[in-house]
Amino acid sequence: MNFLEERILSDAVVKDGAVLKVDSFLNHQVDTDLVEQIAQEFHRRFAHKPITKVFTIESSGIAIAYAVARQFGVPLVFAKKSGSVNLDGETYIADIPSFTHKVTNRVIVGKRFLQSEDRVLIIDDFLANGYALQGLISLVDAAGAQVWGLGVAIEKGFQEGGDRIRNLGYHLESLAIIDAMDPATGTITFRNNGGTK
Amino acid sequence: MNFLEERILSDAVVKDGAVLKVDSFLNHQVDTDLVEQIAQEFHRRFAHKPITKVFTIESSGIAIAYAVARQFGVPLVFAKKSGSVNLDGETYIADIPSFTHKVTNRVIVGKRFLQSEDRVLIIDDFLANGYALQGLISLVDAAGAQVWGLGVAIEKGFQEGGDRIRNLGYHLESLAIIDAMDPATGTITFRNNGGTK
Repeated sequence: MNFLEERILSDAVVKDGAVLKVDSFLNHQVDTDLVEQIAQEFHRRFAHKPITKVFTIESSGIAIAYAVARQFGVPLVFAKKSGSVNLDGETYIADIPSFTHKVTNRVIVGKRFLQSEDRVLIIDDFLANGYALQGLISLVDAAGAQVWGLGVAIEKGFQEGGDRIRNLGYHLESLAIIDAMDPATGTITFRNNGGTK
Repeated sequence: MNFLEERILSDAVVKDGAVLKVDSFLNHQVDTDLVEQIAQEFHRRFAHKPITKVFTIESSGIAIAYAVARQFGVPLVFAKKSGSVNLDGETYIADIPSFTHKVTNRVIVGKRFLQSEDRVLIIDDFLANGYALQGLISLVDAAGAQVWGLGVAIEKGFQEGGDRIRNLGYHLESLAIIDAMDPATGTITFRNNGGTK
């Protein structure tokens, strides 16, 4: 079991509806030592790749993506949700179905910030159905840039997003893959994660 | 002129309606070296204070606030806008008028993440009318915790927010205070900033 899986077992809370609450250490209160460790691990896993930009979507992935960008010594770019003010100029746009499938969220990135020569590492805190990551991939594609890898802290392995992205041929690294979780007992079962010592 | 003022002169764009675009280096694309320098400067200015938590609001302040929290070795907490999913449990709530005054944005923080013994440093990227910072202050007050300082990267000194917060007795540090800017010529005038060498 790696450091993130241990932390999830210790501090995450399983809720009804396939919800895993990690708000005490990852996406509301943020343990900066843990996020630094996550960033170092992503850097180790993608270290052989000549990444020029780290790309995420506001807002819960920003802290992790910032720390990863620091590791690579490259800029961070975060796509904005359409409610954000002050976006002008030429933009790329992707529409992402929400978790509940009831609405669609529009995400936007300024064209100036993704160039065709960019080699992009996409980072996010969670991967479930994969729609957010697919939206980010489509923004990179629209720019004519290349996705050289995707890293997520926590993948819900019992949802289809991870398999879908891997089947498209992308190099996806998830630091903790949850194959099952039970809100009644709080039990969390991790996938045997060969990528981590 | 300090490093941030120099960067603003070099890369920021003045738009009509008192809008300063810093999206190429601060709040859409993020220059991680610059943000690290900003964080080190905030740490220097508040170093004598026994801060236990850095507090910001999603999402454009998160990268800076994360870097500051790393400097202090304390957790980052970011308040969420009310559209965010997955907030349950007891929360503190503040209502913040938007920049256009047409709507009110609700911001929320879990009660577990602000304790009465916390000594809080509030960080944000921008200060204009000050409503966002005042909302964050009210959340800290609601928790019975103490605001030990506020740090913003860029203050629009020609709007009333900074004076209002200083008049309330808070220790506010702004790394760059803009006293005037002219969209026709692109001219930006900084306040003589005694806090910076």
